[in-house]
Amino acid sequence: MNYSIIFYIIGWILKLEAIFMFLPGITAVIYGETSGFAFLITIIICLALGIPLTWKKPSKKAFYTKEGFVTVALSWIVLSIMGALPFIFSGSIPNPVDAIFETVSGFTTTGASILADVEILPHCVLIWRSFTHWIGGMGVLVFILSLLPLTGGYHMNLMKAESPGPSVSKLVPKVQSTAKILYGIYFVMTVIQIILLLLGGMPLFDSLCAAFGTAGTGGFGIKSDSMAGYSTYLQVVITIFMILFGINFNAYFLLITRKFAQAFKMEEVRYYLGIIAIAVLIITCNIYHMYGSVSESLQQAAFQVGSIITTTGYATTDFNLWPEISRTILVMLMFIGACAGSTGGGIKVSRILILCKTIRKELHIFLHPNAVKKIKMDGKVIPHEVLRSTNIFIIVYILIIAGSVFLIAFDDFDLITNFTAVTATFNNIGPGLELVGPIGNFGMFSWFSKIVLTFDMLAGRLEIFPLLLLFVRDTWKKF
Amino acid sequence: MNYSIIFYIIGWILKLEAIFMFLPGITAVIYGETSGFAFLITIIICLALGIPLTWKKPSKKAFYTKEGFVTVALSWIVLSIMGALPFIFSGSIPNPVDAIFETVSGFTTTGASILADVEILPHCVLIWRSFTHWIGGMGVLVFILSLLPLTGGYHMNLMKAESPGPSVSKLVPKVQSTAKILYGIYFVMTVIQIILLLLGGMPLFDSLCAAFGTAGTGGFGIKSDSMAGYSTYLQVVITIFMILFGINFNAYFLLITRKFAQAFKMEEVRYYLGIIAIAVLIITCNIYHMYGSVSESLQQAAFQVGSIITTTGYATTDFNLWPEISRTILVMLMFIGACAGSTGGGIKVSRILILCKTIRKELHIFLHPNAVKKIKMDGKVIPHEVLRSTNIFIIVYILIIAGSVFLIAFDDFDLITNFTAVTATFNNIGPGLELVGPIGNFGMFSWFSKIVLTFDMLAGRLEIFPLLLLFVRDTWKKF
Repeated sequence: MNYSIIFYIIGWILKLEAIFMFLPGITAVIYGETSGFAFLITIIICLALGIPLTWKKPSKKAFYTKEGFVTVALSWIVLSIMGALPFIFSGSIPNPVDAIFETVSGFTTTGASILADVEILPHCVLIWRSFTHWIGGMGVLVFILSLLPLTGGYHMNLMKAESPGPSVSKLVPKVQSTAKILYGIYFVMTVIQIILLLLGGMPLFDSLCAAFGTAGTGGFGIKSDSMAGYSTYLQVVITIFMILFGINFNAYFLLITRKFAQAFKMEEVRYYLGIIAIAVLIITCNIYHMYGSVSESLQQAAFQVGSIITTTGYATTDFNLWPEISRTILVMLMFIGACAGSTGGGIKVSRILILCKTIRKELHIFLHPNAVKKIKMDGKVIPHEVLRSTNIFIIVYILIIAGSVFLIAFDDFDLITNFTAVTATFNNIGPGLELVGPIGNFGMFSWFSKIVLTFDMLAGRLEIFPLLLLFVRDTWKKF
Repeated sequence: MNYSIIFYIIGWILKLEAIFMFLPGITAVIYGETSGFAFLITIIICLALGIPLTWKKPSKKAFYTKEGFVTVALSWIVLSIMGALPFIFSGSIPNPVDAIFETVSGFTTTGASILADVEILPHCVLIWRSFTHWIGGMGVLVFILSLLPLTGGYHMNLMKAESPGPSVSKLVPKVQSTAKILYGIYFVMTVIQIILLLLGGMPLFDSLCAAFGTAGTGGFGIKSDSMAGYSTYLQVVITIFMILFGINFNAYFLLITRKFAQAFKMEEVRYYLGIIAIAVLIITCNIYHMYGSVSESLQQAAFQVGSIITTTGYATTDFNLWPEISRTILVMLMFIGACAGSTGGGIKVSRILILCKTIRKELHIFLHPNAVKKIKMDGKVIPHEVLRSTNIFIIVYILIIAGSVFLIAFDDFDLITNFTAVTATFNNIGPGLELVGPIGNFGMFSWFSKIVLTFDMLAGRLEIFPLLLLFVRDTWKKF
């Protein structure tokens, strides 16, 4: 294990986090809030730890996949602990377990909250909550990669561990340039959304928070009724941008480089949009009797479907009260999730596609034992490694869900609450059904259950393996 | 596709079913019930169709895995349709969809019923319901294999398709002898249970029905309160035999042939008993406050755990009212299921073991990329084919559950009812939670949902692939 590089990168994470906290700091100054001191103190702590760690560049260059995974897992844990300090110092969330739950929920873009009423929080704390979504959405290590002139093979290993989806493709030969392009697209799209929200009459502060939450597919709101209070125009803008941020960013890169044919042929994106269309259609018919007009039903259906499949978690209505078929569809969308290479969570459409193709292939082989059949995606053969890791992913995924539901069942809430609480945190969505539905929150769980759900959020965002490796003894062996 | 052999075997199935129906027929004569004529008519129909089909032996000998799977799937469908006729003719269950649901539930050893009150049924119908469990438990094609002097390679292909578990091992070189040994053990154990029940003062008719249901791990009762009305001694006997019938029958064969060391070392059986012990322990502690005494809590916990993990489905109490942690454990046991090579359903302990070992191996390979590690069970390396088919099984398994929950959600019952209804039918258990809990039944579902659940029961018993193949166009192509 190459500890020197790991500490060096964690040092950079701390310095970056200090810089990020200037945004809530400035907000506090503007609104004249004393909670701003909590951020000041945290910035000082981050710098005091981060600067010595990055004092000199590590000499040992060996950096393998294992180190990449461990670095990413530890970075996210450090990021979350430091990010929780302002909540504690400012007294907004005095309990450390709650504060860490809330912060992890922010960085992992889950959006599950332990707070019953967010409207009493100061502006600087609210914008920090929303900003953690934006930071976590595209990934903080990808951000570092775009800045740091790191050499050696470890770029790819870091990106592999942090980026969502079964496999990572470099857009351009250099990893640093890929990271820059990704963040560029991310930044520009966020700005466009902010402008569109401002044009609709949303205040600047609200627009920033809403856009951060949409871009990171996070879901923290600054109002108790989430997005229900905004105008139809604003809700439609948010619906469209949620769905856009759930698309594989490779598609945008192809569009920018004018490879339109390739962009429109991406199988994952086509299926993603197809699933959304079908889900919206069925739910619109199913809830029509509740809203009375096609346009209102359609808009409600589209917002909630977009919010759940992209794992954002905003709500404009209490979908917990919808008929069973709509609720069931939403629970299924919770599992499917967004595209790989987007800011969304869940299993990812591409993994589902790979699994379906695997089944078709197996049936084919069964009927034609001597046939040779390769599984393809976008016309390219999927490597055996990706197929195998996808299978393993799904199995570990199910075991973690089962284990978590079991552990939080000790709190004796009903099975739907438990099951959707785990589903909503592990898939980084936010709200579930029943007690953790759109108008509920996670505050009633015991500290033990909160730790389990915090683990699930991190495991979901980092796609399990980086976090799992921390618990294997062999990882820490020197050899 | 070799149709001549398929028809020949289906002919034998029909003839066998006619013979099996003599038991309810005789029961009708003893109790002087007019419903007996329903069985007489069905026997005549079965023979009228079966005898011509088996008139001459098929000349074409080619019989591959594909044919084996299709034969098994078709046989079970024919068996169920014919088995449903007496319910319709006697007027006990006049609706054909209901009658087929009930019969499939019987043969697949599910034990889910659409009847609100079974106590009003005539004796001959009750014993037929229970007897279908016994027939389906060990498998009707395995029965045929033990009788018919079939030649060629198709023994193994039939057995592979019908026997539960990831792989089938022949106990002795000849398949026919293996089938005979399996049915021998099955028969003797059933007789021992009947004797023990009679010694406890249970009437002969009740003992026969209870033993058929236990041996097949079915779960149809002849009382509205399932097993709650019987004495503690009888409940304990049933608990023990449920657990015994959930053990891999290879273990019994090893015991008979005095290979004690091998028998006690079988990993699957050890884990199976270990899981039962842990589940009983936790639930006993969890429900202690409801029953007030350790022995009563222990007995209730053991009965319900044994009933659910072996997928029998008998009940002595309404576990739907238990605290959440106990309910969650029961739902998990529904998925785990019994041992491969037993009469129980579910995913099977051995498959769960294989999956856990696969995950451990993958983590190991991740940390030591050049290591060579084979997955072993009982000291033997598991073939690659078995690993792959286990992975695929789990994925198809999940997709079928998700699809079924979606389809039956149109009936607008709550999510727990829908989810556990699918879980309980697909894993061949019987009762679920909420509306389909131990004191509920499946009668309220629409005919469409009943067909979906009937499919699930068959798919669960035949472990998906034989039934799935029927829907692939390639299966029916000549080549």
